[in-house]
Amino acid sequence: MKKVKVYVTLRESVLDPQGTALKGALHTMGYGEVADVRIGKYLELQVEPSERNLDAVVREMCEKLLANVVIEDYRYEVEEAVNQ
Amino acid sequence: MKKVKVYVTLRESVLDPQGTALKGALHTMGYGEVADVRIGKYLELQVEPSERNLDAVVREMCEKLLANVVIEDYRYEVEEAVNQ
Repeated sequence: MKKVKVYVTLRESVLDPQGTALKGALHTMGYGEVADVRIGKYLELQVEPSERNLDAVVREMCEKLLANVVIEDYRYEVEEAVNQ
Repeated sequence: MKKVKVYVTLRESVLDPQGTALKGALHTMGYGEVADVRIGKYLELQVEPSERNLDAVVREMCEKLLANVVIEDYRYEVEEAVNQ
């Protein structure tokens, strides 16, 4: 079993109104040193071994469903999952 | 200027219906090897230098606004921001 961590972020050129709202809230709360906030998604997938190549499968899932590649970038890391 | 990456995840004991829906969608699309999906938030903050301690400020912001500590965990990393 592998643990795949996927980070989906808005592309630099795309406005992030949710991040701007959060920055405004932080300023109101007294955290004026925060110059910018961008919000993205973080996904943790537990993936069972299969005969398919894990990197290819993760990239396919990201491009088809997890990220909107028109406005979002994604990156991912694969870790060996530890039994808990 | 520092870049702070904040990861907010649901605690292990909290149900993640959005993750379950995503897992179902991935199974329907033929990715049956995905055993579990958990969804969290990923935030990138650009923080200007101030006389306050950065770690203390980031923890305060997380606990007051960015994460709901009753149901969510957070972790963060601080990087030197690179001018682009």
